[in-house]
Amino acid sequence: MGISHLISIVGAGPGDPDLLTVKAHKRLIEADVILYDALMGGEILELAKPEAIKLYVGKIYNDWQNQEERQNSIYSLFLHWAGQNKKVVRLKTGDSMIFGRGAEEIRFCKENSLNYEVIPGITAGIASSSLFEIPLTERGKNSMVLFHAGHRENGKFTDLELITNVLKTGSPVVIYMGLNKLSDMAKALSRAGIENTIPIQVLSKISQSDEKGYETTIGGVAEFLQQNSPETPSIIIIGKHVVRI
Amino acid sequence: MGISHLISIVGAGPGDPDLLTVKAHKRLIEADVILYDALMGGEILELAKPEAIKLYVGKIYNDWQNQEERQNSIYSLFLHWAGQNKKVVRLKTGDSMIFGRGAEEIRFCKENSLNYEVIPGITAGIASSSLFEIPLTERGKNSMVLFHAGHRENGKFTDLELITNVLKTGSPVVIYMGLNKLSDMAKALSRAGIENTIPIQVLSKISQSDEKGYETTIGGVAEFLQQNSPETPSIIIIGKHVVRI
Repeated sequence: MGISHLISIVGAGPGDPDLLTVKAHKRLIEADVILYDALMGGEILELAKPEAIKLYVGKIYNDWQNQEERQNSIYSLFLHWAGQNKKVVRLKTGDSMIFGRGAEEIRFCKENSLNYEVIPGITAGIASSSLFEIPLTERGKNSMVLFHAGHRENGKFTDLELITNVLKTGSPVVIYMGLNKLSDMAKALSRAGIENTIPIQVLSKISQSDEKGYETTIGGVAEFLQQNSPETPSIIIIGKHVVRI
Repeated sequence: MGISHLISIVGAGPGDPDLLTVKAHKRLIEADVILYDALMGGEILELAKPEAIKLYVGKIYNDWQNQEERQNSIYSLFLHWAGQNKKVVRLKTGDSMIFGRGAEEIRFCKENSLNYEVIPGITAGIASSSLFEIPLTERGKNSMVLFHAGHRENGKFTDLELITNVLKTGSPVVIYMGLNKLSDMAKALSRAGIENTIPIQVLSKISQSDEKGYETTIGGVAEFLQQNSPETPSIIIIGKHVVRI
C-alpha cells in the first residue's frame, strides 16, 4: 500500500456547503474519489474537481441489500482506492460519530493500516437548533439535552421511560430519523404522562434551499400529519421550551 | 439604525480554525468588530483583518461582575456597533444554542430590530468524539447520548438519577464544564450503582495544539486526579462503550 493515499471520514454537516468545516471543504476540493451516502442536495458534491469520481454508496429506500453487504462494499472501495494512492473522502451527513456509523469505518481503516483521518461535522440536531432559533439549553430553564435515534424493539420504543423523564424535567429530546415514528411516539409519550400541550418542532431538510420548519404539540400530531407532509430527512425536537425565539 | 450592519452570532467550534464552518470563516475575515468570550487559543482571532476591533467580553475566573451586568455590556456593544453600521461577529466556543447562551442574545437582537444571523458550530461534545475517536452511538450498542452541564443545586447534582439511568442502558453521558465536578460526580454515580469499571474520558483543550485525552474509570477518578492535572476546558464522556477505537 502506498503512503500517499488518505481516507478522510468527513462529517458534512446538514447539507449547506457553507456549513462544511474549512477542513472538510479543503478535502472535498482536493478529493480524487468521494463516497457519499446521503442525498444531501447536490451542492456539496459540486465542490469536487470535475474529474473526481463520485460514488453513491448509501441505502436506497427499501432496497434489497443488507447493511453488512453494503458496508463491505464500502470497505472494498477503501482498499481499492487506497491501493491506487488516491485521496478519498468518505462523506457522511452531519457528524460520523453520532448516528453515523463512523466507528465501524474507522476500525476498518485501523485494522487495515490505511492512512485515515476523522473530521467532525455539525450534527443535524445542533444545526437545526441554530437555523430555526430553537434553544436546546437555556440558563435557568434546562441544563441537558438528549439525542435519540427513536428506535423501536418488538414494537415498542426503546428508552421510552427515560425519554419521558427527560421531558418531565423540562429538557428537550432530539429525535433523529423520526418522521415515520412521530405519530406513535407522540401517542406513547402522551400515555406515559407527557402533557398534550408540550411543543414539537419538525424540521425538514435543514439548511437546504427547501428547508421547512413545522410546529405542533404532543396532542396535535395526528391532526398535524393529516394536514402536512414534512419531507425526510427531518429532525424532531420535543420539549417544554422548544419554541422558536 | 442603518441597514448595513450585521451581527453574526457565530459558533466557532472547538478552537481549531480549520473546524470553523466556511460561513463563520467568511464572517470573521470580513468582521469590523469581534466580541469573543472564550479564550480559544488566539488562532481564530488572527483570521481577522488587522484593523478589526477585538473585544474580550467573557468571564474572568472568579471575577466580580455578575452575569447580568456582563450580558448588558455585550448588548450595549451590539447597539453601539450596529449604530456605526459595522459588521460584528459575536464569537462563541462550540455552538451558541447548547450551553452557549445564544438564545438571550438572539432575543435581544430581535427585540431591538437588529440585523442578525445565527451560524451553527461544532459543539465540543461532538468534536471530541471525532478527534479522539470515541463513538457516541454505535449500531447494536446504543442509540442515544445525553449532553449535560453537570449542574449542582443545594450541593447535589441535578438529574443524577436520570444520568444514572442513561448510563445503565449503556449509552454515554457527555458532561460540559465538568472538570471541577469530576471527583464528586464519580462518587455520586458510584453510590447510585454505576460500576467502578465504567470508562471515563477526560478530553482537555480539544482541537488545540496542546489538546490531551485522558482515560480513567468511575472507580479510578480519585487516583487519576492525584496523578494528573487536566487543563480546562475539558469535556468528560462517561459510558460503558466510550473507549478510543
